[in-house]
Amino acid sequence: MPHRVVILGGGFGGLYAAKALRRAPVDVTLIDRRNFHLFQPLLYQVATGGLSPGEIASPLRHVLARQKNARVWMGEAADLDAARRTLILKDGEVEYDSLIVATGSRHHYFGNPQWEEHAPGLKTIEDATAIRGRILAAFEHAEREPEPAKRKAWLTFAIVGGGPTGVELAGTLGEIANDTLRHDFRSINPADAQILLVEGGPRVLASFPADLSRAAEEALIRLGVRTLLAKVTGVDAEGVDVEIRGSRSRISSRTVLWAAGVAASPFGKVLAERAGATLDRAGRVVLDPGLSIPGHPEIFVIGDLASVIQDGNPLPGVAPVAMQQGSYAARAIEERLRGRTPPPFRYFNKGNLATIGRAAAVADFGRIRFSGPIAWLAWLFIHLMYLVEFDNRLLVLTEWAYNYATRNRGARLITGGQSGGR
Amino acid sequence: MPHRVVILGGGFGGLYAAKALRRAPVDVTLIDRRNFHLFQPLLYQVATGGLSPGEIASPLRHVLARQKNARVWMGEAADLDAARRTLILKDGEVEYDSLIVATGSRHHYFGNPQWEEHAPGLKTIEDATAIRGRILAAFEHAEREPEPAKRKAWLTFAIVGGGPTGVELAGTLGEIANDTLRHDFRSINPADAQILLVEGGPRVLASFPADLSRAAEEALIRLGVRTLLAKVTGVDAEGVDVEIRGSRSRISSRTVLWAAGVAASPFGKVLAERAGATLDRAGRVVLDPGLSIPGHPEIFVIGDLASVIQDGNPLPGVAPVAMQQGSYAARAIEERLRGRTPPPFRYFNKGNLATIGRAAAVADFGRIRFSGPIAWLAWLFIHLMYLVEFDNRLLVLTEWAYNYATRNRGARLITGGQSGGR
Repeated sequence: MPHRVVILGGGFGGLYAAKALRRAPVDVTLIDRRNFHLFQPLLYQVATGGLSPGEIASPLRHVLARQKNARVWMGEAADLDAARRTLILKDGEVEYDSLIVATGSRHHYFGNPQWEEHAPGLKTIEDATAIRGRILAAFEHAEREPEPAKRKAWLTFAIVGGGPTGVELAGTLGEIANDTLRHDFRSINPADAQILLVEGGPRVLASFPADLSRAAEEALIRLGVRTLLAKVTGVDAEGVDVEIRGSRSRISSRTVLWAAGVAASPFGKVLAERAGATLDRAGRVVLDPGLSIPGHPEIFVIGDLASVIQDGNPLPGVAPVAMQQGSYAARAIEERLRGRTPPPFRYFNKGNLATIGRAAAVADFGRIRFSGPIAWLAWLFIHLMYLVEFDNRLLVLTEWAYNYATRNRGARLITGGQSGGR
Repeated sequence: MPHRVVILGGGFGGLYAAKALRRAPVDVTLIDRRNFHLFQPLLYQVATGGLSPGEIASPLRHVLARQKNARVWMGEAADLDAARRTLILKDGEVEYDSLIVATGSRHHYFGNPQWEEHAPGLKTIEDATAIRGRILAAFEHAEREPEPAKRKAWLTFAIVGGGPTGVELAGTLGEIANDTLRHDFRSINPADAQILLVEGGPRVLASFPADLSRAAEEALIRLGVRTLLAKVTGVDAEGVDVEIRGSRSRISSRTVLWAAGVAASPFGKVLAERAGATLDRAGRVVLDPGLSIPGHPEIFVIGDLASVIQDGNPLPGVAPVAMQQGSYAARAIEERLRGRTPPPFRYFNKGNLATIGRAAAVADFGRIRFSGPIAWLAWLFIHLMYLVEFDNRLLVLTEWAYNYATRNRGARLITGGQSGGR
């Protein structure tokens, strides 16, 4: 019987691991709760009506259809029996010789789970369509609201967290208010919308050099977004409480979006209990240099759930890290099957990109840094190449070009329970 | 103050009425629970993963953005005060001089509402994504099910109702099983799926001539669909009870889809209570020849909610009828404003089309009847022209051509609560 590799999670890390094993003499089982791989970097486009869910998600089966040594199971992990090398699912179990855990992360409200209801985060397709519904419904409510103060609260959007996701959401909201919806309303002017990006640290895009943060902030201002350096102390249905340099203040807003904290997936706790793994403060699994749990060389952890320190800094929870770790884990398994010892993992940073809005982005390739339309084109190109690699999604490019030309956002649907379904 | 026209419902009838009033000296308010117009004839494509929801839905605001005499309100009707000429919404009210009611229909389980849970119908975007999730999850379950009888039940799909919607769903399911998913599974062969189209009458597509029904049935057989002429007597989570020529039988199926009955929207009852309207057996409003409620010339009812007999037959609940009725109501209002009496409404039947699957359709243009690829192209052309007219949706054409060429169905996502969201 060939060596059995079980991969838990079909995100960037898990999928890259599966694909990197395509020529290896192994049996691969990829398990995910969902039946699709989600291209998370474009999730904000779904949340803002620029793309439809189906355009940024590929069925995992379809992606791996031609890889004969791989099968896909839809299932949810419940527990682990490390001694029997068995992963326990909610409705069954599966044995492994090597296990690659790539269950990712979710959003995190710094110990205030009650905020989630009022400030949804952006991790899943359902999050994205729910946020899209909230944004569009806010304009609908404003159109029908006769009282100026209430109308203003409907037209105030607060995005908490000035990292790449927060910047993307805020910039795109600026475009929607100023461009997309320009002619659509009769009682309100969507351009009157206030879009606030609330960042707790000293600047937005803290992972980028300071000059690119400044460029991003200027681009945001051009899109009508105000950056507010403040600490969020409360979130409720009517707005956000903030603390600015020690003094408290209140933002009345009916639409608060969360782009601040992430926490490792709860499967980390299972690894701690069942395989003796150590978790860091954010719940991520501390690993040996080969990305395995110390004492369990057969269990790899990759992606957002992995805690890896390189050159004194923790590796960020971004797609390129997960992809390189996925390929590494696959190679390590192959090396061991050949009786060789794999070299330690090392992340090679090819550069960082963040987009702000139409034709605005920042790029940091080490010595080369730039912002503006060229950075945006670089961002577009890299993301589209990834989509095309996986699923021949040339149509997404077409749709984008079309939306870019017409300043349209086709997928402006309010769906789901919220607005009263059937 | 200009004459105030309130239109309730943004489907085919309501939207056509609003657009037909674009040059009239009136103020139009279009009210809908949803913020979008749904192109229902393509809903089955969403239910089967061929198109994304955003591709068959256009924001009502966007469609009417340039029509200066029209505004769009998102809201739900709760009651009517016919004496005060006021429509009462769940959260407000609006006065009218003319009211056009176009609230459509929903599915109907012939007095067995408990069947709905096990046999979802196809009326809304949420219905379509839920059905899509069920179809795809059934294959996922089958892939993991070791017991043959249970696996067979997961691979058996029963579609109740052999009208155009049932035929489209069954045919597309046949394509999915035989083509789209061909290489995606390891333990099952999707082509082993049993697809049953259960029709209670003597033949499928009963509204078409008998020779076209036969052509449709032959096309279905080529797609692997079996037609079963039987009466459904029960639906539960594990299958369907049927009666065939007096003898009872049982179909074990984990996926039952409902395409059988429709009932008029519940707003008909409000019209009966508040404006003295008479309802027919299906709950539709009986109208005078000018599509108004007798005694209330200012209240028009159009589309699926209208009960209109022409040449001895009731008009069917299809989009062309609703569209012509919408234009008629608009013209009638204009005529009256000019002091003239509008002529009675008369539906002009341009022909009927039903599609079965890839390159298979039937067309009935009175003396000219045909089936096969040409009928399919006619169907495609007419539907695309409509989409393009409303929203410049050339991209849908592109996507379709692409899917046609690659036999792909991109939007194969299982989303929503069912599979355990976030």
